[in-house]
Amino acid sequence: MQAWEIRDSFGFDHFHQTERPPAELGPGEVRVKVRAVSLNYRDLLMIRGHYNPRQPLPLIPCSDGSGEIVEVGPGVDPARVGERVASCFFQTWSGGPPSSDKVRGSLGGPLDGMLASERVLRADGVVPVPEHLSDAAAATLPCAALTAWSALVTQADVKAGDVVLVQGTGGVSIFALQFACLLGAEVIVTSSSDVKLERARELGAWQTINYRDDPDWGKTARRLTGGRGVDHVVEVGGSGTLMQSLRAVRIGGHISMIGVLSGRQDKLDVVPILMQNIRVQGVLVASRDSFVDMNRAITAHQLEPVVDRVFPFAEAPDAFAHLAAGKHLGKVVIELEST
Amino acid sequence: MQAWEIRDSFGFDHFHQTERPPAELGPGEVRVKVRAVSLNYRDLLMIRGHYNPRQPLPLIPCSDGSGEIVEVGPGVDPARVGERVASCFFQTWSGGPPSSDKVRGSLGGPLDGMLASERVLRADGVVPVPEHLSDAAAATLPCAALTAWSALVTQADVKAGDVVLVQGTGGVSIFALQFACLLGAEVIVTSSSDVKLERARELGAWQTINYRDDPDWGKTARRLTGGRGVDHVVEVGGSGTLMQSLRAVRIGGHISMIGVLSGRQDKLDVVPILMQNIRVQGVLVASRDSFVDMNRAITAHQLEPVVDRVFPFAEAPDAFAHLAAGKHLGKVVIELEST
Amino acid sequence: MQAWEIRDSFGFDHFHQTERPPAELGPGEVRVKVRAVSLNYRDLLMIRGHYNPRQPLPLIPCSDGSGEIVEVGPGVDPARVGERVASCFFQTWSGGPPSSDKVRGSLGGPLDGMLASERVLRADGVVPVPEHLSDAAAATLPCAALTAWSALVTQADVKAGDVVLVQGTGGVSIFALQFACLLGAEVIVTSSSDVKLERARELGAWQTINYRDDPDWGKTARRLTGGRGVDHVVEVGGSGTLMQSLRAVRIGGHISMIGVLSGRQDKLDVVPILMQNIRVQGVLVASRDSFVDMNRAITAHQLEPVVDRVFPFAEAPDAFAHLAAGKHLGKVVIELEST
Amino acid sequence: MQAWEIRDSFGFDHFHQTERPPAELGPGEVRVKVRAVSLNYRDLLMIRGHYNPRQPLPLIPCSDGSGEIVEVGPGVDPARVGERVASCFFQTWSGGPPSSDKVRGSLGGPLDGMLASERVLRADGVVPVPEHLSDAAAATLPCAALTAWSALVTQADVKAGDVVLVQGTGGVSIFALQFACLLGAEVIVTSSSDVKLERARELGAWQTINYRDDPDWGKTARRLTGGRGVDHVVEVGGSGTLMQSLRAVRIGGHISMIGVLSGRQDKLDVVPILMQNIRVQGVLVASRDSFVDMNRAITAHQLEPVVDRVFPFAEAPDAFAHLAAGKHLGKVVIELEST
Repeated sequence: MQAWEIRDSFGFDHFHQTERPPAELGPGEVRVKVRAVSLNYRDLLMIRGHYNPRQPLPLIPCSDGSGEIVEVGPGVDPARVGERVASCFFQTWSGGPPSSDKVRGSLGGPLDGMLASERVLRADGVVPVPEHLSDAAAATLPCAALTAWSALVTQADVKAGDVVLVQGTGGVSIFALQFACLLGAEVIVTSSSDVKLERARELGAWQTINYRDDPDWGKTARRLTGGRGVDHVVEVGGSGTLMQSLRAVRIGGHISMIGVLSGRQDKLDVVPILMQNIRVQGVLVASRDSFVDMNRAITAHQLEPVVDRVFPFAEAPDAFAHLAAGKHLGKVVIELEST
Repeated sequence: MQAWEIRDSFGFDHFHQTERPPAELGPGEVRVKVRAVSLNYRDLLMIRGHYNPRQPLPLIPCSDGSGEIVEVGPGVDPARVGERVASCFFQTWSGGPPSSDKVRGSLGGPLDGMLASERVLRADGVVPVPEHLSDAAAATLPCAALTAWSALVTQADVKAGDVVLVQGTGGVSIFALQFACLLGAEVIVTSSSDVKLERARELGAWQTINYRDDPDWGKTARRLTGGRGVDHVVEVGGSGTLMQSLRAVRIGGHISMIGVLSGRQDKLDVVPILMQNIRVQGVLVASRDSFVDMNRAITAHQLEPVVDRVFPFAEAPDAFAHLAAGKHLGKVVIELEST
Repeated sequence: MQAWEIRDSFGFDHFHQTERPPAELGPGEVRVKVRAVSLNYRDLLMIRGHYNPRQPLPLIPCSDGSGEIVEVGPGVDPARVGERVASCFFQTWSGGPPSSDKVRGSLGGPLDGMLASERVLRADGVVPVPEHLSDAAAATLPCAALTAWSALVTQADVKAGDVVLVQGTGGVSIFALQFACLLGAEVIVTSSSDVKLERARELGAWQTINYRDDPDWGKTARRLTGGRGVDHVVEVGGSGTLMQSLRAVRIGGHISMIGVLSGRQDKLDVVPILMQNIRVQGVLVASRDSFVDMNRAITAHQLEPVVDRVFPFAEAPDAFAHLAAGKHLGKVVIELEST
Repeated sequence: MQAWEIRDSFGFDHFHQTERPPAELGPGEVRVKVRAVSLNYRDLLMIRGHYNPRQPLPLIPCSDGSGEIVEVGPGVDPARVGERVASCFFQTWSGGPPSSDKVRGSLGGPLDGMLASERVLRADGVVPVPEHLSDAAAATLPCAALTAWSALVTQADVKAGDVVLVQGTGGVSIFALQFACLLGAEVIVTSSSDVKLERARELGAWQTINYRDDPDWGKTARRLTGGRGVDHVVEVGGSGTLMQSLRAVRIGGHISMIGVLSGRQDKLDVVPILMQNIRVQGVLVASRDSFVDMNRAITAHQLEPVVDRVFPFAEAPDAFAHLAAGKHLGKVVIELEST
């Protein structure tokens, strides 16, 4: 099989395409012919060695992939051959609240990831994908979409009439915008690009704020809600954003803290959190059960993930460069030839 | 002021239009000029003496009304004069879970209700109504809409992708259909009338079942979900419906038990409840806080309540006869002249 | 290995001790040397053919057992050999809400159960038991204890100061009494035996009611709470108990419906459920995650399950006869010789 | 009536005892003869002008008091005369989640507080106190006890077997220790004083850590849980404590952020929050409904609040000096003569 791997040490100089022998297929496992892989900022940090410098190498990066089950191991229903599936970010978080055991085995580090022509995974480490989705679209779900779903639904019960503020237009943010609309919420989107904000409005945003023109956007967001404050913020981080989020959110409101885009440290003014009964909730993906719930919603609404650009497998480094440049809106995808 | 009252004893023979002196306006109270009143099955039972035979008379019936604040008592912000409001079913349930104190004071029995040209109510016993709603539309909210909202949102966290089964096309049921759609759920509606089912589809129903043609509709509903079962049933009662609901609902699913349409007793097969971890939740309206949340959702989506027919104040008994005939879809409303 | 099985058809005439060859140990599996088995009413119904008449035979009954891991299959940490464990009622419900997939594989039907000298189970189909418990005590946990825990904690968040009414003194009920005390609740216990009620008081009951002397015990329970009503009822069924439970419970209170002791049908007066916003929640055991949480509580409090009587393996039918007689308080256990 | 007031400007130089005419008693109000007042750190900051420098003066400080209803205004049940009550911190938060309207009117700023011989309050701005409590003990409940209850019960559903880490031995912390024990949790207490830690153990602490001897106490707390991490931290702040709390808490655990002891800003390393799905929840007291629930628990367990020292009314400044010195454990109380 073909794979991209981080070989001897971190950095794109050590990121190579390689040939590996096919893995053996054990009991309870499935062989997935990979059709598409989507990139997350975490994958970029991993290759650069900024995510977990102690990660043993070589490593196949990327948590998110879609494909088709082409072979099943002992104990797995043979009828699953031919099933179109996506990978589960955490291979052993089937349901319920997280625990150290459940979040130990994530793809793309510490486990080998999906940037390969085929992968052997646990039978319950993949989920069937919505029928209407292309391979590229299905590949966007495991991390970004599920994190957005977890923030809005699993953790926070966003409901019709709520106001949700979404920062930026990256992968998680665009899914958060789309899901919040499905749930009946009104969505405010921030970005530094008027072009991206225009696209956000097309996707259903109720209001948009260009934070470059309006650095005190938290106050603006509050004003847009008639002074009440927004119910929910999807905080993807970056210097100073948390201060603005605290300004935007209502008494008793929620801030979902998402994404390694955030600097490693931020100043936190704890007084508003305390005085306004605010909840700050860290969100790192979710369980297989939540993935299945999310797919039901995606199917019911025939929702289309926003794919920014698709690169061929051979050009994986270019795909990462595109992600790193930050010009994208939605997800960056690598597609494998469907031979 | 003008009012309809149940005078000496129960029954429509004792239901009369009358003139009463205006009530005094105490501290913390507001005088509401009533513009419209909506009818609930409970009001019909009350007049007939079937709801609470020990209710002291005379009584002005009807819990649900809309109008305008025309005068405020001491301690109430004078700026509220002119505010368009609807009545709160429970005058003292401001928020949180119910208690005997909170659900003691309901309008239309034991307290005088809204079927009058003006009413004096607690300042926090009314809520502002969504601006886009007519008086008639606003009058439909206090009991039926809020019960539907409570069943789906306050009690059950219905989310995008869930399947909700709604029985019939009465006031609560049509609101449940509309709210479930806002929340991103797929809705199955049952009725004995193909015409009403057609209307339900126009309002967003995903699937419809004519229970006259298909008495084992619970099984059909389950089949429509691919065998999984529906996530939520809005059970408005009638003989044998609970048995079908138990057949329709998924393992771990919810049944919201609503409405005095239900016979007073039903046979309950407790085994499926037990064996399938099912929740049966009684729902009788909700708090003022939930009313405000619901109005925010109605405003955000410019949702229009379904008003079946509007009667003039002088023809109140005809309005009740229309409700009793069961031919309506949505709400029956009485409008007062806006002099 | 030795086992008791329901051989050709249902009934105690067909319940025989037998010798079977040891099962093969597959990947992801463990071999458990069984030390003790506890009986549930479900097991009795199963042998009699009243639980699921379509259950294929032969079947080893009993969902609940404790023992020691003596061998592990491929892929299981060899360090687990020697671990003292109890069986999980549902072999594949690891966490989160129930689903048909999760509750498919229960021990003692449809899967072979624990009444055997050894059993091969999934490595995640057993949980480590609290160290301070004897084998007999550990064997009481999988169904009865976990059902009580699920009713009070997983489903209902019973908190300090709540009043919990527990019906009777069977296995689930005594655990419910013990757990409710740990959670800081005040517990009312009903029974027809003053001797058992005395024992319940020793175990922490705040109040007791002999329902033979006081058939309208629901009203008495309400009076004991100063008229407010109890917060939670653990309803184990029997004719007419649900009516009394509805009388006892407060507005907005919970009734956990548990146990196949209930007749298959009961008359349900739906009006109080509706009018008082009551929740009736079916409870059938819980997930592995909840089992682990429960064990943490049992360990923290060095809680001792109440074992009514222990029978040797050879006298399994006598153990069932003892359970059927209904004279017990707490759990009936069968112990295997620890050779 | 007698009162202490912050007169012309902030600071203890402007904190004077004074005589004021009795307030008029309006409709829906009660006159409370104050028996005891407890101090919170917030009251100290208020007098110093550090809590809200824009607070209009003069102001009677202190949110927390107990006493007896001696007179009722129009519309209030005369039977309430003689009722022993405590003040509600927020006069208009009766139930449900907080909102700006609900948390507007807090005693001791912006509204006049309880450090006076009598006060006129809303009839629903006071709650009956547990019978077994002295006036001094009852005065400790409104802010510190209810904040601890809210953190553990209203916001977090702490359950038997959970591990709760409580920082320090101030008013909120000692209540958190006591309530966590009632709920069946195991409690770890930190302090810089071995004497206080000894007292904490007497009150039920499972483990104690002297953070002066063990600055990396977060790691120690984690080790005490066998590496799993604590379920809940009651974070009362101070420089660097949040970093240690993040080290102590388990994946998916909760940190309740409480108390103005915290510096106004702390460095926040957001990565652990994100990566470990941690929830940080600001907690500022709770609703009247929660107060009533808490009192039920206090009564059921005959719980005794820990009163560190009682000062006479005339020595109010000494009481504040004692609080400021930080030598106390539990609550500092001012008692009025019961003439």
